[in-house]
Amino acid sequence: MGTCSADLAALLGPNATAIAAADYICNKFTDASFAVDNTYLLFSAYLNFFMQLGFAMLCAGSVRSKNAISVMLTNVLDAAIAGLFYYLFGFAFAFGSPSNGGFIGRHNFGLESIPSSSFDYSNFLYHWAFAVSAAGIASGSMAERTQFVAYLIYSSFLTGFVYPVVSHWFWATDGWATAFRVDSGFLFGSGVIDFAGSGVVHMVGGVAGLWGALIEGPRIGRFDSSGRSVALRDHNATLVVLGTFILWFGWYGFNPGSFNKISGFYTSGNHYGQWSAVGRTAVTTTLAGCTSALTTLFGKWILTSHWDVTDFCSGLLGGFAAITAGCSVVEPWAAIICGFVAALVLISCNKLAEKVKYDDPLGAAQLHGGCGAWGVIFTALFASEKYVREVYPSRPVRYGLFMGGGGRLLAAHIIQILVIVGWVSATMGTLFYFLHKFGHLRVSADDEMADMDLTRQGRLAYVDHDEDESQKQGFK
Amino acid sequence: MGTCSADLAALLGPNATAIAAADYICNKFTDASFAVDNTYLLFSAYLNFFMQLGFAMLCAGSVRSKNAISVMLTNVLDAAIAGLFYYLFGFAFAFGSPSNGGFIGRHNFGLESIPSSSFDYSNFLYHWAFAVSAAGIASGSMAERTQFVAYLIYSSFLTGFVYPVVSHWFWATDGWATAFRVDSGFLFGSGVIDFAGSGVVHMVGGVAGLWGALIEGPRIGRFDSSGRSVALRDHNATLVVLGTFILWFGWYGFNPGSFNKISGFYTSGNHYGQWSAVGRTAVTTTLAGCTSALTTLFGKWILTSHWDVTDFCSGLLGGFAAITAGCSVVEPWAAIICGFVAALVLISCNKLAEKVKYDDPLGAAQLHGGCGAWGVIFTALFASEKYVREVYPSRPVRYGLFMGGGGRLLAAHIIQILVIVGWVSATMGTLFYFLHKFGHLRVSADDEMADMDLTRQGRLAYVDHDEDESQKQGFK
Amino acid sequence: MGTCSADLAALLGPNATAIAAADYICNKFTDASFAVDNTYLLFSAYLNFFMQLGFAMLCAGSVRSKNAISVMLTNVLDAAIAGLFYYLFGFAFAFGSPSNGGFIGRHNFGLESIPSSSFDYSNFLYHWAFAVSAAGIASGSMAERTQFVAYLIYSSFLTGFVYPVVSHWFWATDGWATAFRVDSGFLFGSGVIDFAGSGVVHMVGGVAGLWGALIEGPRIGRFDSSGRSVALRDHNATLVVLGTFILWFGWYGFNPGSFNKISGFYTSGNHYGQWSAVGRTAVTTTLAGCTSALTTLFGKWILTSHWDVTDFCSGLLGGFAAITAGCSVVEPWAAIICGFVAALVLISCNKLAEKVKYDDPLGAAQLHGGCGAWGVIFTALFASEKYVREVYPSRPVRYGLFMGGGGRLLAAHIIQILVIVGWVSATMGTLFYFLHKFGHLRVSADDEMADMDLTRQGRLAYVDHDEDESQKQGFK
Repeated sequence: MGTCSADLAALLGPNATAIAAADYICNKFTDASFAVDNTYLLFSAYLNFFMQLGFAMLCAGSVRSKNAISVMLTNVLDAAIAGLFYYLFGFAFAFGSPSNGGFIGRHNFGLESIPSSSFDYSNFLYHWAFAVSAAGIASGSMAERTQFVAYLIYSSFLTGFVYPVVSHWFWATDGWATAFRVDSGFLFGSGVIDFAGSGVVHMVGGVAGLWGALIEGPRIGRFDSSGRSVALRDHNATLVVLGTFILWFGWYGFNPGSFNKISGFYTSGNHYGQWSAVGRTAVTTTLAGCTSALTTLFGKWILTSHWDVTDFCSGLLGGFAAITAGCSVVEPWAAIICGFVAALVLISCNKLAEKVKYDDPLGAAQLHGGCGAWGVIFTALFASEKYVREVYPSRPVRYGLFMGGGGRLLAAHIIQILVIVGWVSATMGTLFYFLHKFGHLRVSADDEMADMDLTRQGRLAYVDHDEDESQKQGFK
Repeated sequence: MGTCSADLAALLGPNATAIAAADYICNKFTDASFAVDNTYLLFSAYLNFFMQLGFAMLCAGSVRSKNAISVMLTNVLDAAIAGLFYYLFGFAFAFGSPSNGGFIGRHNFGLESIPSSSFDYSNFLYHWAFAVSAAGIASGSMAERTQFVAYLIYSSFLTGFVYPVVSHWFWATDGWATAFRVDSGFLFGSGVIDFAGSGVVHMVGGVAGLWGALIEGPRIGRFDSSGRSVALRDHNATLVVLGTFILWFGWYGFNPGSFNKISGFYTSGNHYGQWSAVGRTAVTTTLAGCTSALTTLFGKWILTSHWDVTDFCSGLLGGFAAITAGCSVVEPWAAIICGFVAALVLISCNKLAEKVKYDDPLGAAQLHGGCGAWGVIFTALFASEKYVREVYPSRPVRYGLFMGGGGRLLAAHIIQILVIVGWVSATMGTLFYFLHKFGHLRVSADDEMADMDLTRQGRLAYVDHDEDESQKQGFK
Repeated sequence: MGTCSADLAALLGPNATAIAAADYICNKFTDASFAVDNTYLLFSAYLNFFMQLGFAMLCAGSVRSKNAISVMLTNVLDAAIAGLFYYLFGFAFAFGSPSNGGFIGRHNFGLESIPSSSFDYSNFLYHWAFAVSAAGIASGSMAERTQFVAYLIYSSFLTGFVYPVVSHWFWATDGWATAFRVDSGFLFGSGVIDFAGSGVVHMVGGVAGLWGALIEGPRIGRFDSSGRSVALRDHNATLVVLGTFILWFGWYGFNPGSFNKISGFYTSGNHYGQWSAVGRTAVTTTLAGCTSALTTLFGKWILTSHWDVTDFCSGLLGGFAAITAGCSVVEPWAAIICGFVAALVLISCNKLAEKVKYDDPLGAAQLHGGCGAWGVIFTALFASEKYVREVYPSRPVRYGLFMGGGGRLLAAHIIQILVIVGWVSATMGTLFYFLHKFGHLRVSADDEMADMDLTRQGRLAYVDHDEDESQKQGFK
């Protein structure tokens, strides 16, 4: 506003009333832009949050029916636990500037001093939804065999501490590794471009889930006595489609919403501005997902001679996870390449998981971890100079290797992958190890073989025959 | 705009072209603010309407499968009936100012003279969705045993008359009991702060459902011959989770949307304005729901030693129903208190209902009536002076008792509770009584014991075995 | 903006700084209006896209459970195929001006030169969702008996060519038959008012599906040996309700979103502008759907003595399909007439379909084709002069016959119906004919009698008993 008033006052005239007129007019502009930017961000946050319903339906449909309630409970819990912990600590660790040396934020606990000139409540809501997503991803990997108390503990730790710290590094303006920084001396003079979090959200969730699933081991019966893979069939494809499309819908909050603001010209007085970049981000997201879905569908058809809607669904989500890092800085045609490779990465990761006897009921580590990592690399290869200048204006511009931008961005992005894997392994891996060691990670074999919904939750997801049961327990 | 033009003309200069310039500039501002405010309100209305799908799924999942179609039919009917009746009468009764002595509106029937300087079509849509919610709540209480014709009658009466009158009292600028009034002599010099309707929507729906369910009595088999409670199990927990999360999503239209506008500074030229209050309202809503969900989950675990996702879901909705009155005028930390107590209120109301043999298949009277009433009280205890000044500017400010604001607001809010209970009992209670007396309220015992979907609707919700049935009736 | 700068400069003064001030101020206005218009359009596009989930759930619920996966796969495929083909060709054919004589666009392939002064990415996304809808409608008609490869081919052809061409004729500013044209000599000096596509989207989808379903013939068992109709029961009414309400929600993107912009006064400085028209469009949409739903419910009750929620649902969608053409230019009371007649049209079309042994599992041709055609006629009868002037400003105004506007609009609209039926028949009808002739349209009788999900997709939608199956094929 200061700028606007000064600029305009210089034009309207030197006297006091002209200055007042400039102030008056500029205040009106500011009002309009705050209103529209917050409208855009709040509705993006709502969409972003709605993804958790997508995860819940996807998980419920992807497990055996006996575990549907258990897995949904973990998904809804993630949202509620993150609500409290991200409010109390998480947002402060992530964005409480000035931070401790770019490592962890230290202000705004419990939203103290919010709204500020940097953040309003809408920013908190938007980032809370990201924290929920990270936890939701991990829940999928550990479905069908994890103790409830373990969920409570790791979900709190992940949403309140582990994830916020990562998001500080790569997204806060004073994070040590972000391309939003204005100083140029760090991380190969580049910093990381992970716009909506292929690394920050998807890899964090995927790596956390990987450690949990690895440490507790495969579900009973997932590999037979000779070590051969035995599919434990998902029980409801309709829920899988429902969940996937809700995730697709919500991704339009996740990716295009990450601009936080929609107003602002790139070319003054022209039609071209931040709104174009927001729209382009929605387009790249769409194209990457569609391409990956079709590629996965056809790829699996080549391998198995069957058309399977759940292949389409996981391919779609893999494409989304991959484009998330670069969605705002690549051309639409590049998004098609991103999606195509994401499908190959997904199929390969799933093959590899089977070979090493890694059991992940949702394939979450493969999808979010594997395709997320590809997305980080992809961005370093295809980021366009023009778009990087527009989206990350205050820095020396490093863009994609294949676009003529040299290798510094790629170097920074490889560091990002290593750092995320290292940090999440050190924190979440350690946590899961101790939970395991003290017997709080995995349910007993008896419980797992029985209907877990019945033993843990005291009820089944579906009651087919309407008996009135006087001894039923655990009912509301 | 008049103000804007005058203010700006005084600054730009005394001549005619300066006045014209001021007009020109101010018109542009007005254009922008109408566009953004309507965008915000319309999408809030869409979200608000979407809640009815949440109710439908929640209800379908919460009843026995044989009644799933019946209960969904009532939910979809509510939306359609309200569409017509709220258009013809309801909106006029609610907001057709000047009203008959603050009791009932009397203009704008059939949206005549809309858009006006006070209301545009977006306002109608937004409030139509509220009317649908009130009817939807009552449908839940009376599920599994009510005649279809009774639904048609009470839903029309509720959405076309009973609810609109209440909303006039507390929300229209000339309602007799609203804190939006500018004159100070009424209702303890305070007026009621029921921002998004813990009383106006939730208590109205809850009390209506209470009378319906009380008068028709419990479902057959709900209490055994010795009077012991027998749970009639909900048939599909996945639908319960689906419905609950859709309601959560929609509540971001319900509560933050109730500002109607998102533009406007609180501190001129600063970052702080109506958009901050909208965002804060979304935050308080989130925190109250999360806290109540976790409290209910743990509370029920203490009572039953089972973790049940449906406890989480009803706790969440209870927290939302409670925060709805005060969502815009309390601090985020207070929302946590609100949610915690809401969970205790909900558990207690459910215990009480069982003790007095009140049967409400959705627990709607307890959840919306009980937690809604707590929300009304809560607001009178925790409303912050600063926020009340901003959200209800044109009145003598009365704020929360615990915030140092004295007891007048609490007195007004107690009156609100009494008035709502009285009015809804007098109207809906009487209606249900006569429906009952003339045999139009409850289905026959034979129909109730049989598959009601089959007898009333001619079909079952699910067809498992794909027989082709040539004698099937009632099929589209 | 040019206009704004010139107008304002004339008022602020003749000197260079005044001109610069006017530029500065007008640029700020432009920024605000681009931001809000794109916010409105993007979120409308998201809603519009979300309808495809509605189609998928509606279709899954409306077929026999054995075919639920197949039909969902076609719905999700439509979205992905359209994503690629509409990006590569479709958008260019539809809006790549200047076009080949108003017949087909020829610029912007692969979104080249987008954003331009006419279109931004948000426009592409919005229209992509329309293309998906057209394909989704046709999928419903051909459910339960069509080969997968046929879907792939016709979906690509429909979304990449057939539909875009139609949308060019009636929606592009240089289409040969659109009311957006400024020259007055064409099509009875009128042009067609098909605001959101009763003809362009719904009839195109409906007629395409009609030809597909006609050419492949009824499902086995749909009519018995004596030619009597045998209902093949939909398997899940909950999914039907879920899908229908998601479609309702999404229709608020489909119809009110078709303005593309929400800013702009109709009466300068007043409260009345484009936002009012957007809101009114949401209201007419709501009222037409509600009226049609209730009329269909009661009409079917009169015919069958059963209340059926799926009658409500199809009636609702029929009302929406009908109001789509005229939603922006008719009064709310006229929308009620539109919905009432739409219900009668729907019931009649369904009766007729049964009589002529036409089998359409979703009733899509009847609903989208029949009610869509009624909507085109309705608009020519009831379009209001005032609203047509506001929504289609740059043309000689032709409005509804019953509103005193004469018969030219009706004549143009009859031409529209004939042209759409002719074009879609010539293209899609021919395609289906050749697919049929070469044996690529219909599955074998054995596959159709067996569980199609199992033979084609290698799996069933639901797995009830959680067996671990080592020989399962086609599983992700």
